[in-house]
Amino acid sequence: MSFKDASVQEIDQVMQEAWKAFQQYRKTTLKQRADLMRTIGTEMEAIGDELIRVVMEETHLPEARVKNERARTIFQLTSYAAACEAGHWLEARIDTAVPDKGDPDIRKMQVPLGPVVVFGASNFPFAYSTAGGDTASALAAGCPVVVKAHPAHARTSELVAKAIFRAVEKCGLPKGVFGHVHGASFETGKALVTHPHTRAVGFTGSYGGGKALFDWANQRKTPIPVFAEMGSINPIFLLPDKLKQSAKEVAGLYAGSITLGTGQFCTNPGLIIGIDNEDLQTFIHELGDAIKKIAPGTMLHPGIAKAYGEKRKAALEQKEVETVAVSEVPAKDQQGVPTIATATALAFFNNPLLHQEVFGPYSLIIRCADKAELLTVAEHLEGQLTSTLMATEKDMKDHAGLVDHVQDICGRFILNGVPTGVRVALSMQHGGPFPATTDSRFTSVGADGIKRWVRPLSFQNWADNLLPDALKNSNPLSIWRMVNDKLTDNAIA
Amino acid sequence: MSFKDASVQEIDQVMQEAWKAFQQYRKTTLKQRADLMRTIGTEMEAIGDELIRVVMEETHLPEARVKNERARTIFQLTSYAAACEAGHWLEARIDTAVPDKGDPDIRKMQVPLGPVVVFGASNFPFAYSTAGGDTASALAAGCPVVVKAHPAHARTSELVAKAIFRAVEKCGLPKGVFGHVHGASFETGKALVTHPHTRAVGFTGSYGGGKALFDWANQRKTPIPVFAEMGSINPIFLLPDKLKQSAKEVAGLYAGSITLGTGQFCTNPGLIIGIDNEDLQTFIHELGDAIKKIAPGTMLHPGIAKAYGEKRKAALEQKEVETVAVSEVPAKDQQGVPTIATATALAFFNNPLLHQEVFGPYSLIIRCADKAELLTVAEHLEGQLTSTLMATEKDMKDHAGLVDHVQDICGRFILNGVPTGVRVALSMQHGGPFPATTDSRFTSVGADGIKRWVRPLSFQNWADNLLPDALKNSNPLSIWRMVNDKLTDNAIA
Repeated sequence: MSFKDASVQEIDQVMQEAWKAFQQYRKTTLKQRADLMRTIGTEMEAIGDELIRVVMEETHLPEARVKNERARTIFQLTSYAAACEAGHWLEARIDTAVPDKGDPDIRKMQVPLGPVVVFGASNFPFAYSTAGGDTASALAAGCPVVVKAHPAHARTSELVAKAIFRAVEKCGLPKGVFGHVHGASFETGKALVTHPHTRAVGFTGSYGGGKALFDWANQRKTPIPVFAEMGSINPIFLLPDKLKQSAKEVAGLYAGSITLGTGQFCTNPGLIIGIDNEDLQTFIHELGDAIKKIAPGTMLHPGIAKAYGEKRKAALEQKEVETVAVSEVPAKDQQGVPTIATATALAFFNNPLLHQEVFGPYSLIIRCADKAELLTVAEHLEGQLTSTLMATEKDMKDHAGLVDHVQDICGRFILNGVPTGVRVALSMQHGGPFPATTDSRFTSVGADGIKRWVRPLSFQNWADNLLPDALKNSNPLSIWRMVNDKLTDNAIA
Repeated sequence: MSFKDASVQEIDQVMQEAWKAFQQYRKTTLKQRADLMRTIGTEMEAIGDELIRVVMEETHLPEARVKNERARTIFQLTSYAAACEAGHWLEARIDTAVPDKGDPDIRKMQVPLGPVVVFGASNFPFAYSTAGGDTASALAAGCPVVVKAHPAHARTSELVAKAIFRAVEKCGLPKGVFGHVHGASFETGKALVTHPHTRAVGFTGSYGGGKALFDWANQRKTPIPVFAEMGSINPIFLLPDKLKQSAKEVAGLYAGSITLGTGQFCTNPGLIIGIDNEDLQTFIHELGDAIKKIAPGTMLHPGIAKAYGEKRKAALEQKEVETVAVSEVPAKDQQGVPTIATATALAFFNNPLLHQEVFGPYSLIIRCADKAELLTVAEHLEGQLTSTLMATEKDMKDHAGLVDHVQDICGRFILNGVPTGVRVALSMQHGGPFPATTDSRFTSVGADGIKRWVRPLSFQNWADNLLPDALKNSNPLSIWRMVNDKLTDNAIA
């Protein structure tokens, strides 16, 4: 089955409906929004096995992974619904009048931006797609959502969209709260981002795609925010004391992380950096041995498999790059072959191709001559979603300059762990300095993601009965508020 | 006295020093930052009368206003210092490990972006300039600041910069925590915004200037955020029931607001909209009478006086525009003459020139045929810092559609008051939808302004003793934190 690209006229109609729905949806209570989010989860689950089957057909992902991702997506919907109701994201601030000083009563809260356009990711057909984190957090904020289905799993997107339509109807909300369009062309994307009723954009995908949306959004008559997650090589720094203690264990841990989900995670560790010595050689040797035994996996779609094959080939063909290990299990069509290569820091400095992400089960180990070179490699890195130190406390002290620098280039800083596996929690920062994302100040995972779709509005000198509930003296929502510079969940006397 | 524009080499040196200082300054405690901010206030005050005299010479502002603005600026420094120490802006979030589910310990807090470049405003030589709100909030966040002095008050800026330098030295901080350069050309601005070590920009001024900075920042290899406040006509909607009750009082209130500070406030009410009837005519008549008696005031500098003269003339020359009243007090050179004009809504729809800000003591009254036209005028307005309703509760009900729409186009929504007068408080939103500012999601007044200069960073699986104080189990800063989705200022057991 294939779907026709939405025409400019169809996109205009969808955005008009979203705008119309916004006028009602922005006034819904937090409970109404949370109910919608939970109902979407229920409706998704109600599709049952058909949904799992279609995703597996479209993405080649194994059943367990697909079921886990569905569960995660429903958890996102329900946990962001709880965060929506708790109302911390409203950031209510109240300063009561001080007549002696002529200071008026001012009360501020976050209000929704308006219709949000979401471009889903090919590698997460549920969690970062039609009913994924962007959609869930925008609905919590009070924004209608228009999803452009990812062409690589368009049927899955249709099924999930229908679940959302049913939920919107069951909750008695205007139809335009959710819109769904197809489109494989840049033109569809451009029409969505440049539509006057579009107020913000969420995107997960390639640098080329995300940067194009960002530029279109900034060139509008009225620029709008674009939250694009665009890729990351997630550097791992192997510090010497740690490696001396446990080179083998670290190698085992990373063999798993590099090949998890056939390397198709945005947090896949694509670059491993260490000081060249006997312990690093042990690590390389052990990692290579493990990689040889790991079977290739079928990649999400032919485009991704082709890109992996080409980028991997280009990397391995660089004269400074030495192949360490390639999976010895025979590969079928469209499969990604686990691969480890290595190069010196000097080669890394001189060859920008070695800085590029090879999306799939591939990792490049950089061998540094000394501590200074290790820091210089870090200084050559662009913004990342994550960075990881494998380090003892002694290493942390010995490499304080590196620790400082690495903080500057990532959104999540991991100590003695792996970057794959993104916990859905308020403390999660999934987003990092450009070019990992277009805006390092926001996260796309965790309830803080709601903040992407709102802006503050102050009400000055409003009568209490005319104010939104979040700002009324009686605190009818029982939320935490800053009242005259003090945090409280009390009513105002 | 005149100052030479900084060369590209000088700018590079200042930014290099800022970057170097950032490596130390980011690690300072909240108390150290707050001490610096308070010391800047003390040092500014210590300059004494010389500072007041120089400002008055450069800006022609009256002494009382200058002294008030100095007091306000010191209040900003000390109140943001208190907010810095209270630490709510750190947004500390902790989710402890759940080993059964394989969930690692993750802790998130806001960290400083890096060196911030500030372009001060000509109309606030203290409060929005060298030691103004942008500088104070960036220092609170842990960011070094480089100020480009406004050429219209370069000597004032020099004096204040020296006070900051002394404060930095007294606090034992690296010199590069603050930098100060001169420059009247676009080239200076461009060199500052495009320097690789610049991580964010604050600006208050014209649309042309702010938009240029925004575009340069977005076209960088690594785009950076620009917080530019660029102007606003601050519409006032006079609703019929309110006007029936108190047309005279409203006119008196607005005669004062329109001419306050010779109309040189970004929150000056430049557009007043009402339904044409006897009450509106009473309002126009009364406002005109009051305006005739208000003396012209000397404007900040010849450039502003010239621009006011030209824009006022262009507006009054439009054939659809009728002059209501002009101050009858003779005007001296470089003075802004209080002026009120009027036009129909139809004229407003057809002539985009009538939508433009005339920076100075000028306001245009739009006469609508009916309620529908009133809403249509609102729909023709671009983003604003403030919008105001003069309305009774009956008006609010009768014009619910207008109330909804106006929320969408402003950052601060005032009921039965005037937009001039910006309370420095946490609840203040000073910022609005484009083109009022480049980013409606942040404020330039109030301690929430600190949030412009930070981004979240998650620490995963870090040992307690290696974490920043804000995230340690014992909560040594005694700040409020979200711990496992609950707000608390307790330590973690």
